Amino acid sequence: MQNYVLKISCEDQKGLVHKITGLLFKYDFNVLETAEFVERNSNHFFMRSQAIGQEGIEIVEELQKIVSSNAQIIWKAQHKKKIVVLATKEYHCLGDLLLRNRFDALNAEILAVVSNHAVLKDLVEKFDIPFHFLDHEAYQRSEHEQEVIKIIQSYEPEYVVLAKYMRVLSADFVQCFEGQIINIHHSFLPAFIGANPYRQAYERGVKVIGATAHFVNSDLDEGPIISQDVSYVDHKRTPKELTQAGRYLEVSVLSKALQLVFDDRVFVHSNKTIIFD
Amino acid sequence: MQNYVLKISCEDQKGLVHKITGLLFKYDFNVLETAEFVERNSNHFFMRSQAIGQEGIEIVEELQKIVSSNAQIIWKAQHKKKIVVLATKEYHCLGDLLLRNRFDALNAEILAVVSNHAVLKDLVEKFDIPFHFLDHEAYQRSEHEQEVIKIIQSYEPEYVVLAKYMRVLSADFVQCFEGQIINIHHSFLPAFIGANPYRQAYERGVKVIGATAHFVNSDLDEGPIISQDVSYVDHKRTPKELTQAGRYLEVSVLSKALQLVFDDRVFVHSNKTIIFD
Amino acid sequence: MQNYVLKISCEDQKGLVHKITGLLFKYDFNVLETAEFVERNSNHFFMRSQAIGQEGIEIVEELQKIVSSNAQIIWKAQHKKKIVVLATKEYHCLGDLLLRNRFDALNAEILAVVSNHAVLKDLVEKFDIPFHFLDHEAYQRSEHEQEVIKIIQSYEPEYVVLAKYMRVLSADFVQCFEGQIINIHHSFLPAFIGANPYRQAYERGVKVIGATAHFVNSDLDEGPIISQDVSYVDHKRTPKELTQAGRYLEVSVLSKALQLVFDDRVFVHSNKTIIFD
Amino acid sequence: MQNYVLKISCEDQKGLVHKITGLLFKYDFNVLETAEFVERNSNHFFMRSQAIGQEGIEIVEELQKIVSSNAQIIWKAQHKKKIVVLATKEYHCLGDLLLRNRFDALNAEILAVVSNHAVLKDLVEKFDIPFHFLDHEAYQRSEHEQEVIKIIQSYEPEYVVLAKYMRVLSADFVQCFEGQIINIHHSFLPAFIGANPYRQAYERGVKVIGATAHFVNSDLDEGPIISQDVSYVDHKRTPKELTQAGRYLEVSVLSKALQLVFDDRVFVHSNKTIIFD
Repeated sequence: MQNYVLKISCEDQKGLVHKITGLLFKYDFNVLETAEFVERNSNHFFMRSQAIGQEGIEIVEELQKIVSSNAQIIWKAQHKKKIVVLATKEYHCLGDLLLRNRFDALNAEILAVVSNHAVLKDLVEKFDIPFHFLDHEAYQRSEHEQEVIKIIQSYEPEYVVLAKYMRVLSADFVQCFEGQIINIHHSFLPAFIGANPYRQAYERGVKVIGATAHFVNSDLDEGPIISQDVSYVDHKRTPKELTQAGRYLEVSVLSKALQLVFDDRVFVHSNKTIIFD
Repeated sequence: MQNYVLKISCEDQKGLVHKITGLLFKYDFNVLETAEFVERNSNHFFMRSQAIGQEGIEIVEELQKIVSSNAQIIWKAQHKKKIVVLATKEYHCLGDLLLRNRFDALNAEILAVVSNHAVLKDLVEKFDIPFHFLDHEAYQRSEHEQEVIKIIQSYEPEYVVLAKYMRVLSADFVQCFEGQIINIHHSFLPAFIGANPYRQAYERGVKVIGATAHFVNSDLDEGPIISQDVSYVDHKRTPKELTQAGRYLEVSVLSKALQLVFDDRVFVHSNKTIIFD
Repeated sequence: MQNYVLKISCEDQKGLVHKITGLLFKYDFNVLETAEFVERNSNHFFMRSQAIGQEGIEIVEELQKIVSSNAQIIWKAQHKKKIVVLATKEYHCLGDLLLRNRFDALNAEILAVVSNHAVLKDLVEKFDIPFHFLDHEAYQRSEHEQEVIKIIQSYEPEYVVLAKYMRVLSADFVQCFEGQIINIHHSFLPAFIGANPYRQAYERGVKVIGATAHFVNSDLDEGPIISQDVSYVDHKRTPKELTQAGRYLEVSVLSKALQLVFDDRVFVHSNKTIIFD
Repeated sequence: MQNYVLKISCEDQKGLVHKITGLLFKYDFNVLETAEFVERNSNHFFMRSQAIGQEGIEIVEELQKIVSSNAQIIWKAQHKKKIVVLATKEYHCLGDLLLRNRFDALNAEILAVVSNHAVLKDLVEKFDIPFHFLDHEAYQRSEHEQEVIKIIQSYEPEYVVLAKYMRVLSADFVQCFEGQIINIHHSFLPAFIGANPYRQAYERGVKVIGATAHFVNSDLDEGPIISQDVSYVDHKRTPKELTQAGRYLEVSVLSKALQLVFDDRVFVHSNKTIIFD
């Protein structure tokens, strides 16, 4: 007996929930939690179930006969996701991931950390995780990226987490890990797209700063948003202090997004996410 | 074709979602939204569906054969709930309800307002709602309550909303409208139970104040919580200023709770609520 | 004996607080609350004091000798601000202001409401406030604005509150009431500037929506921000539901901003606000 | 030239701000930031200034002549506070402190960690901080506490941080470090005082959980509150999941409180804090 997760994304049709849950019933699965949503504009159906039972690989085959041909079906025993983390110089998001990885509070396993700087090497190695330092000044831009891709691929991760990785990714890079890259952006997107958002926020005199975790696609800072949160600030804060205040926000927003993704609770649909929290 | 809501609360068993959605399918209902939850400790099943179709009163009969005998089944065309509001002297929650009632933003219809003071008469009558002033000093305690009950019952409301009604209700009163009374309590329950919570909050020096909307049962301030929210405060606030700061909180927490209840999104289970938001 | 507010904004120099408080001492004022802030980039000094005493108009003259010649000094007995409210069709912000005006919870007095639609006439007149309906279709654009200005000016208000007034104001209009116009924008500025922000938010798939109260200057949606707040949303919300969810936010953000302004707690400095909360 | 902090807490009298700032002026200090507050009930005056200048120890002597004899005056060059951290088995608050200590983001220096369990030894030693394991089962209760006190005192810390230290402290212990002990309590005090607050929260069916950082005095969970914050939860969360959700809250609330304390922004007055944020 094991915990399984079923995720289905397909064209809507009448009776889908009935048919799908019928299969779970037929194969003697006990459903613990189900959520379903139909996006009316696109007439698209999303369903997630958690169920206890045995194997049941035949379920997927039978499901494929029920749903539209372009359906996406995921049927998996619940497991810790394998991830590679990319970072640059800032310790806070990476540090949080390392701590939670160490104390089994991440629902994932960090296979390696890759960075374009060496400053976090010591921290990562404290936690007995392989650290790959690839100096971006030692390579051409595209060469550097190819090296990074090679190292990531050698670990065969399910997700690539950008924990304040301050390099813009090429379309090539994104394609290599499509739908697998999660980034934390240090602003409340779509406000302050691009570089130095805390300075932008300071210049504009905002009273609230934000952070956004999102899947990465080929448009900079434009991928599907997974989670966002904010902190209140006031006129006293300098750009440097806004940056500090933003750190906790970034840690908690990234952490929340990763938990949702690693628990298979997130669907991507065009440029948005459907999340069964 | 009409919008229907189905709410089922019963003992859990394998295949329930399948069987229930099968009935909706059989009677040609198109399911827009489904949510389901099993409370593991008590092995209790909760499900809410919104579906479009025609009549379908037979569904309830067939459902009753499927589920446990003590199941609670609600099958209703979506409609504006009929309510009576009780208030005392404070205008803010009542005023918000009157405004939203007037501009069709409440998903309910206010049939009447009952108060133990006259101060809000003028406001209520501006909005052409019947106002019943029942001076609590003109009656014995239990007589007064009987009069209030009589007036409420004459309107046959689906819910009774206590919009800062500052009288303690007897067990009798609660029994008359069991599961129908919603109260807004001016603290973050279970902190500061009872009278004058803002003074209590001031004395304790809290940095956050709260408000709680809950169903009323016979234990004062102990009914199932529907919604809660908080505001940040600091040392500068006097009890009077805390009370003012709390007003918006009370309005928005009560409003959110009522929206959930009026949309049939709330189940009560022992002393808790299950909410499909 | 009366409550006075002192607000000073000037070039910083050593000993300012000492000199200023010396004057309050000399004229026998008892200081209840003082806050002071120096903006380091521009070397600008801001100070606000609340003090109890008698008259003290000489204080201003003596202050002018102490501070830089371009200083702004406000010395006023605390009083309810006189305001005119502009609205279009939406009731929620206006309704809240009318309620609070009626129950003495606004620290202001609404002198009149001006609207380019007639739909809110009935509501406003319930509260015995003059309502001026100026149909924007009955005039040329600039004529219409001139009429609105004329009516506002006839009331000599201290502030003009745009409670969901859906007309773009010309530079002329803004100049007539410079530093006196407060607007509520239905997004978390600077995200979703311009029209229909809730649809923009929906298209982008944000997980948090916001509202912003700000002073109006000649750049659309670019004036100094006074307060901002947010609400969490998810994929289920349609643009219409986002709009509804945003209403409470708009009411509470505008209300908070007005309270700060009416209590003389807000300074404007270039494009930002300094707020002594 | 150095940054100094002045904190004064004394009986209120007219002209205090003037006199105090006069001294800073006389000794040629440039004031960067001042905040002042008078608690009306107790007629008590609080003031905090940050100023740049040279030495100025004579200021304190002159201040003492100005203020009431029982005044508390702190005049200190800004510096990183020396702290000892106590923990038990949970890694999250301690881990965050170790990370920030390592990356110079704590405004404090962790001298040592003391624990009644050995499980966090490995983590602490990764960061080259002395770890003292004092098994509470190897001692009598009071002996154990005496040993802990002895070790703490050997480091002469300015503050003792209880980062989820799950032992109740005796009045003796508290007296040894009066006003120096900061605790993180895993509930929104005063709700759920005592053991197992997340289970209590689960049983009560709350919709919001909280955390509270406070100074420790001899009454359990009753010391002056420094900071509080909350997270939204729903019916789906088990006590175990509430505990997990509470971790981030605990980390961020403790962190915020420590930053305020380490920046000398917190006054304690009877059972409350006055905080100049």
